[in-house]
Parts: sequence; structure tokens; C-alpha cells
Amino acid sequence: MSEKGKLIVVSGPSGAGKSTVVFKAVEKRNDVCFSISVTTRKPRPNEVDGKEYFFVDLDRFREMVENDELLEHAEYVANSYGTPRAYVEEKLQSGMNVLLDIEVQGARQVHEKMPDAVMIFIAPPSMDELRTRLEGRGTETERAIEARLIRARQEYKEADFYDYLIINDDADKAAEELNAIITSSHCKFADREDVLKNV
Amino acid sequence: MSEKGKLIVVSGPSGAGKSTVVFKAVEKRNDVCFSISVTTRKPRPNEVDGKEYFFVDLDRFREMVENDELLEHAEYVANSYGTPRAYVEEKLQSGMNVLLDIEVQGARQVHEKMPDAVMIFIAPPSMDELRTRLEGRGTETERAIEARLIRARQEYKEADFYDYLIINDDADKAAEELNAIITSSHCKFADREDVLKNV
Repeated sequence: MSEKGKLIVVSGPSGAGKSTVVFKAVEKRNDVCFSISVTTRKPRPNEVDGKEYFFVDLDRFREMVENDELLEHAEYVANSYGTPRAYVEEKLQSGMNVLLDIEVQGARQVHEKMPDAVMIFIAPPSMDELRTRLEGRGTETERAIEARLIRARQEYKEADFYDYLIINDDADKAAEELNAIITSSHCKFADREDVLKNV
Repeated sequence: MSEKGKLIVVSGPSGAGKSTVVFKAVEKRNDVCFSISVTTRKPRPNEVDGKEYFFVDLDRFREMVENDELLEHAEYVANSYGTPRAYVEEKLQSGMNVLLDIEVQGARQVHEKMPDAVMIFIAPPSMDELRTRLEGRGTETERAIEARLIRARQEYKEADFYDYLIINDDADKAAEELNAIITSSHCKFADREDVLKNV
């Protein structure tokens, strides 16, 4: 592949069915890979550095933040996570599209640092449907579900910088739309107009 | 379909393989129709008004121009042609995407009148390839081919307002790209964000 890849940022509330949609979209194509996060969390016995995560200590993590080596990052009480710019850039240069599944706040950071990134928000068809899906999992208390719904509403309010919105009513249709967005992002006039200039 | 259709404008030099690409793209989907032009040309025996063209006389044509009833138009020595706004709007309202295959000058008029239209330029991979394709047809003189190449170069210079550029190296791939562009044009955040507001 000679064309540079695109950074594809996907966000959406828990329960939107994001993972299913992304998996369905990506399994059909060989030009998409997932980004690998940097984390200060300790590796579990079966985890390999550079596969599930890039494992670093807190000093190195903060150095990466300082040196602008992360496209986005979030520091929690226990652990910190971030997206390594060098890894993403290397994949993009090789022609691969890099898929980043992150929350709205991180996505906003990426949007600012990589204006060319394709920003996609995946939402369920309604709040009622989101509640039904979260309840259907049967893994969370009513209180935890309420918290997720409040969080989803908050994310919706902050999501105004996304380029695309996929409503996941039908996962196959949503995956088709995600694929169409990835493919069409390579057809932007500005990215290809050099072909018209060498004539 | 409840969603409004999109106006899809396709341009490109003669010999770019535009018709083939459009046909391949459209045959797989039932949400795209072609626009029907208004013309002052006399109908041929087998032609039906409202099918191949809307046939009007020159007075009516000029009245349509005057009343802004045409999204674009071109008046030639012998005949005039234009795209009727009312017909296009009606199709879009019904949820159909309307495909318009027109030259760069007309496309610019549409772009100004319908800023939401999706502007796509289809080009051959190179000028050499364009020449080879035009010569391969065996239907035109060397001089006519030279004129087409000069015209193509001119169109390239004026094409800066298009959103997408499809390089037709492989018609199947080009059709896939055209389909992806049509599908993704319905996923624009701004067109769908109301779904996030009613929560």
C-alpha cells in the first residue's frame, strides 16, 4: 500500500454495541488494525508487552505526557492509560488504518492533535433501548445502570466535534456504515488531488 | 425511508470510465435514481417526456432559468439543457439519492445552490491512460482526442471544489468507493445529531 492510513476514532456509550459493530466491520478487511495503549497497570501473567499494552512505569508515562508522545491520555487513581503517537504514526505510514476505541474526552484530545483523524460516534437508537441493553446484560446493579445512562447523556452533549454518527439499530447495517466511512475517508479530494496536478 | 436523500454529483472527463463506475455502483442499490434533464431538443420518436428528458421549448426553458427552477443549465447553439430543481427535490424528499452526471461548470452551479450536495470527481489514473482509452474506442480522430485531453486538463484545474476524487484504475474498486461515499454521506454527524438531543 502506498497511500497513508487514516486514524479512525470510535466512541460511544457502554451498551451502544460498539465492539460488535467494530468487529463486524474489521473482520472483512485487512487494512485496519487496532491501536495499542500505553498503561501503568502491571501486566497480567498472560499479557505480553507490545501486544495487549505497552507497559510502562508512572515516571515514564509522565515523561511521555510531558514530551507529547501521547495522542490522548487519562490518569485514574489506580492506573493511567494513553495512546502512543509513535506507534500510531508508524502504522499509518505503513498504509494501515488505525482504529482507536476511546471515550469522548480522549477523542477530543486526538481530534486536536490529529485534525485529519476520522471521528465517529456510535449510539444506540434511544435511551430506552440503551437501558434495555444494559439491563439485558444482567451484570450490573440498577444504580450502576443509572450512572451509565447519566454518563451517556453527558457524552452526547460533548460529542459535537465528531464527523459521523452511526445509530446502531442493526449491527450489520452499522458495520456497513462504519466500513463505508473508512473507505470513503481515503477518497477525499484534498488527499488525492496531486494525481490531477501531474498532467 | 424516512431520511432525506442526498444529491450526488459526479463529473469527470470523457474516457474516465464514469458511466461504467456509476452503473456498477448503482446496480447493487435501490436508493439511488438518476436525475432527468430538461432540454429544448426535440424528442426522438422513441423518447417519452419525463423519462429520457423533460422536453420544453426555449421560452419555457428561459423562464425556468429566470425563476431559478434549474439547479444548473448550459445553453448551446443548437439546444439547451438543465437540471430541474423541483424534480430533484421531490426525489430527495422521498428518501432517494439523486445522481447527477454533469460537467464541471454545471457542477459548480449545483455546488453553490445545494451546498449539501456530495461532489465527486472521477479521473483516469493518468493522462497517458486517458489517451490510450480514448484511442482504444477507435471512434474519434486524433484531433478530437487532442481536444478532449486539453479539455480534461482544463477541468482538472477547475475541479478544486469537489469533496471526493475517485481514480478509476479498476472499475470495481472505483464503484466500491462511489458506494462507500454515498453510504457515508448519510452518516454525517450534523444530519443525525437530533437523535442525541431527544434523550
